[in-house]
Amino acid sequence: MNTPTLTLAQVAALINAPAPARPQDAARTIAGVNTLAEAGPGDLSVLAHDRFVREYRKTRAMAVIVQRSVKVPADAAPPGAPVVLLADDADAAVAAVLGALAPPVPRPPAGVDALARVAATARLGEGAAVGPFAFVGERVVLGRNCVVHPGVYLGDDVTAGDDCEFFPNVVVRERATIGARVVIHAGSMIGSDGFGYRWDGARHAKIPHIGRVVIEDDVEIGSCVCVDRAKYSTTVIGRGTKVDNLVQVAHNVQVGPHCIIVGQAGLAGSVRLGAGVVLGGQTAVRDHVTMGDGAMAAACSAIADDIPAKSIVSGMPAIPHRQHLREQAAMRRLPDAVVHLRKVEERLTKLETGAGAGPAAT
Amino acid sequence: MNTPTLTLAQVAALINAPAPARPQDAARTIAGVNTLAEAGPGDLSVLAHDRFVREYRKTRAMAVIVQRSVKVPADAAPPGAPVVLLADDADAAVAAVLGALAPPVPRPPAGVDALARVAATARLGEGAAVGPFAFVGERVVLGRNCVVHPGVYLGDDVTAGDDCEFFPNVVVRERATIGARVVIHAGSMIGSDGFGYRWDGARHAKIPHIGRVVIEDDVEIGSCVCVDRAKYSTTVIGRGTKVDNLVQVAHNVQVGPHCIIVGQAGLAGSVRLGAGVVLGGQTAVRDHVTMGDGAMAAACSAIADDIPAKSIVSGMPAIPHRQHLREQAAMRRLPDAVVHLRKVEERLTKLETGAGAGPAAT
Amino acid sequence: MNTPTLTLAQVAALINAPAPARPQDAARTIAGVNTLAEAGPGDLSVLAHDRFVREYRKTRAMAVIVQRSVKVPADAAPPGAPVVLLADDADAAVAAVLGALAPPVPRPPAGVDALARVAATARLGEGAAVGPFAFVGERVVLGRNCVVHPGVYLGDDVTAGDDCEFFPNVVVRERATIGARVVIHAGSMIGSDGFGYRWDGARHAKIPHIGRVVIEDDVEIGSCVCVDRAKYSTTVIGRGTKVDNLVQVAHNVQVGPHCIIVGQAGLAGSVRLGAGVVLGGQTAVRDHVTMGDGAMAAACSAIADDIPAKSIVSGMPAIPHRQHLREQAAMRRLPDAVVHLRKVEERLTKLETGAGAGPAAT
Repeated sequence: MNTPTLTLAQVAALINAPAPARPQDAARTIAGVNTLAEAGPGDLSVLAHDRFVREYRKTRAMAVIVQRSVKVPADAAPPGAPVVLLADDADAAVAAVLGALAPPVPRPPAGVDALARVAATARLGEGAAVGPFAFVGERVVLGRNCVVHPGVYLGDDVTAGDDCEFFPNVVVRERATIGARVVIHAGSMIGSDGFGYRWDGARHAKIPHIGRVVIEDDVEIGSCVCVDRAKYSTTVIGRGTKVDNLVQVAHNVQVGPHCIIVGQAGLAGSVRLGAGVVLGGQTAVRDHVTMGDGAMAAACSAIADDIPAKSIVSGMPAIPHRQHLREQAAMRRLPDAVVHLRKVEERLTKLETGAGAGPAAT
Repeated sequence: MNTPTLTLAQVAALINAPAPARPQDAARTIAGVNTLAEAGPGDLSVLAHDRFVREYRKTRAMAVIVQRSVKVPADAAPPGAPVVLLADDADAAVAAVLGALAPPVPRPPAGVDALARVAATARLGEGAAVGPFAFVGERVVLGRNCVVHPGVYLGDDVTAGDDCEFFPNVVVRERATIGARVVIHAGSMIGSDGFGYRWDGARHAKIPHIGRVVIEDDVEIGSCVCVDRAKYSTTVIGRGTKVDNLVQVAHNVQVGPHCIIVGQAGLAGSVRLGAGVVLGGQTAVRDHVTMGDGAMAAACSAIADDIPAKSIVSGMPAIPHRQHLREQAAMRRLPDAVVHLRKVEERLTKLETGAGAGPAAT
Repeated sequence: MNTPTLTLAQVAALINAPAPARPQDAARTIAGVNTLAEAGPGDLSVLAHDRFVREYRKTRAMAVIVQRSVKVPADAAPPGAPVVLLADDADAAVAAVLGALAPPVPRPPAGVDALARVAATARLGEGAAVGPFAFVGERVVLGRNCVVHPGVYLGDDVTAGDDCEFFPNVVVRERATIGARVVIHAGSMIGSDGFGYRWDGARHAKIPHIGRVVIEDDVEIGSCVCVDRAKYSTTVIGRGTKVDNLVQVAHNVQVGPHCIIVGQAGLAGSVRLGAGVVLGGQTAVRDHVTMGDGAMAAACSAIADDIPAKSIVSGMPAIPHRQHLREQAAMRRLPDAVVHLRKVEERLTKLETGAGAGPAAT
């Protein structure tokens, strides 16, 4: 393994920060990147928010990328006396450093491995690579530089644009259409039949699913994700959308562009997400529900009705987030409130009785 | 890819509808099937419920299967002037059309692929097919026409009846018994050890799981489903039951016949489902819980206690559905109720004090 | 398949119970192990708790391991007249019997299968076995007796200690470090990229994930589990921890030793679990949350804030379990309480009005 290395001077250049003042600092090589709390004396770290100043005071990091807007108190000198590299956007700066440090992803070499099975009718773009134990079906079309890792199955008539990557043991069933620069992580299953049956009086009769899956450009899909083919027409994951692990996307779902779908979320049949929708982890969306552009659902929400654009919902069933917070606050007081109510009733009864009986009764 | 095509006359014959009146209509070939809203001028669509009449008015479909019981207003002529095909059960009719239009599923040819590994002691029925990179263990018995797609693992002593299909990268661990006509979609894992340990004072000691998995006839299992082997005895999925993607079925679970288990549901150890139980998506069922025949749980329910036959439950923990709806309605009013209660108390206190102090105090 | 068998004398010896009094009993061979209710006349069963005495009365089992502390009434003779084997810890005794009865797990023979692909730079310990269709990358190091089942992918620079087992179709991406005696069940995906992006104004720009996964000694991981690599530094599963099926472990999570993580739980980025933490099924833990040693979360909890050591939480959001039970009890009464509150208000208003109007108004 040949991991790239960076000196602090190179880091500074990469993130457009002023170079370290002292030449001996500039020449130092960083061992890695880590949080302020965990960084060792060879590591680069980052201070991107005021709330981490406390951890900054104690860091042993060799160097810290500090967001210009963070107020670092004069007395906050950490024991490690780190080199400070100022950045306008510290998170973006760290991402740039990580990109430069990233070891190359191991990939099969261009061409078809002797232990792969590629149909004679498949067409592979220039630089495309198919690893061992991969299956590429009839009339499959792969764009340039596509990478098909070991154990991948691409069914008949699958097409993929340039620069796609299918990590080990991914399955893409027949007739799926994959855009350019799509990444599908290990073990995801694209294009299985949707879950649809009719009870015919004796059994659940299967409804044939003759539709397809379309995954647009620049989509990234995590591991163990299921995207089912449509009953008819298409199941669509819109361009630029990112899907985390273990997500369920049922038949005929249409996900708009640039959505974020966090781990273990589930979208039931025919759900529609607009552009830039964000679903928190373990979110559930009921079949046929539409969420407007920019709508957000907190983790563990259960969305049972259409959600307007840009609204934020949470809860089970999901309601406007502010209302949910109010309800939760009230819920914390509910047991006491129930007791209170009973006492109020007793007092009231006493008063009623007392009033009816007149002052003499007190 | 050789997709079947149908003329409207053929569609009519298929669904037992009167043929289109005009010969030029009868001869038209449908391009596909789609919803009323999305159908193009070559598509067949369907109007199965009164609530879709509004979409029917606007459809561009070439032809529409209309459920006889739907009241189509006289003025509801869509711009596309579709051919109307009447059906008693429009959903069944569409399913029949989809079946006729379904392109064939690509399958390995009958026999054993040169790049498969099939034990010498395995017995394959007539017409059975084993694709490349598939592993078939010792003493495995596969019925007639079984299809083992690429990358599938069938462990020693697995048996399967006739006409089973194992989609790519499915794993069936040793000694599982699979009935006839069982379909397991890509990436599902059948027969892993159940999750059972005993804390022995120093570590979680593994409880050996020596039981098996039994999957009965006509079961269909989605993708990325886990069905664990029993501690002893068997984990059973009853005949005709349908399981969606990403479902967890723990050790010793017994699922009755004709159940429907929707995506991401989880059944903990030793759960028992009767016949025809329906579990909504992301449902959780606590270990050792029994649900009676025909019981239904709404999506996202958490079932912690036995559920009587035919009852409908929802919520976390699950309670009778009607009660859950009442509680949710009350919950929406809870924040206001808490405020109200405080005001009521103030008024009461005032009254009490006022009563005690007499009119002069006001 | 050559399943081991045991006589009752052997069972007694195995669990340190007095041997059956009658020689003809001692010589009987048990057919299997089963619950009291399901045991057949050849089976061994177990009575470990008083609450199962009712089932004990009716069991048809040939022999029953009875926990010494269980009070078996004198009249509780089951129809099967089972041989009774007394044990101090009946569950442990059953586990021992199951271990002795466990049929051997089928494994590829030691060495590298002709249809495997193992890099020339990989180093395999003595007795290690690599099955067909398995991929072992550059510089991989496997300890003694490691078992790599068919279809497994071990990326470049993966290392594993002695006696690890990778079940079929497991994927371990490059640079992961696996301890000794680690078991990963079929279809789990270790080391995929974490889910991290920055919106750069036009798209979700990927944050490179250059960290690793570390799985410590004696960890067991179920099927279809995802453990993502760290953004930087490591994602850690601590020694002796057991993870059930379909669990999501996001980037930079640190799970302590001897934790129990039940099926479909999800740990978001940078979560930290102390030692011996227990997460129930479908639990969700928000990113950056810390749970102290021995903390427990009931199934379906959603943990949004740090949890102190040894505390028990439940609910969505998770709160102390006792409080959650109180709230749920109050919730059951909420619909009635809301009605009551309205009636109280009416009575109060009447009283107020009545008080204002004087006795004449009544």
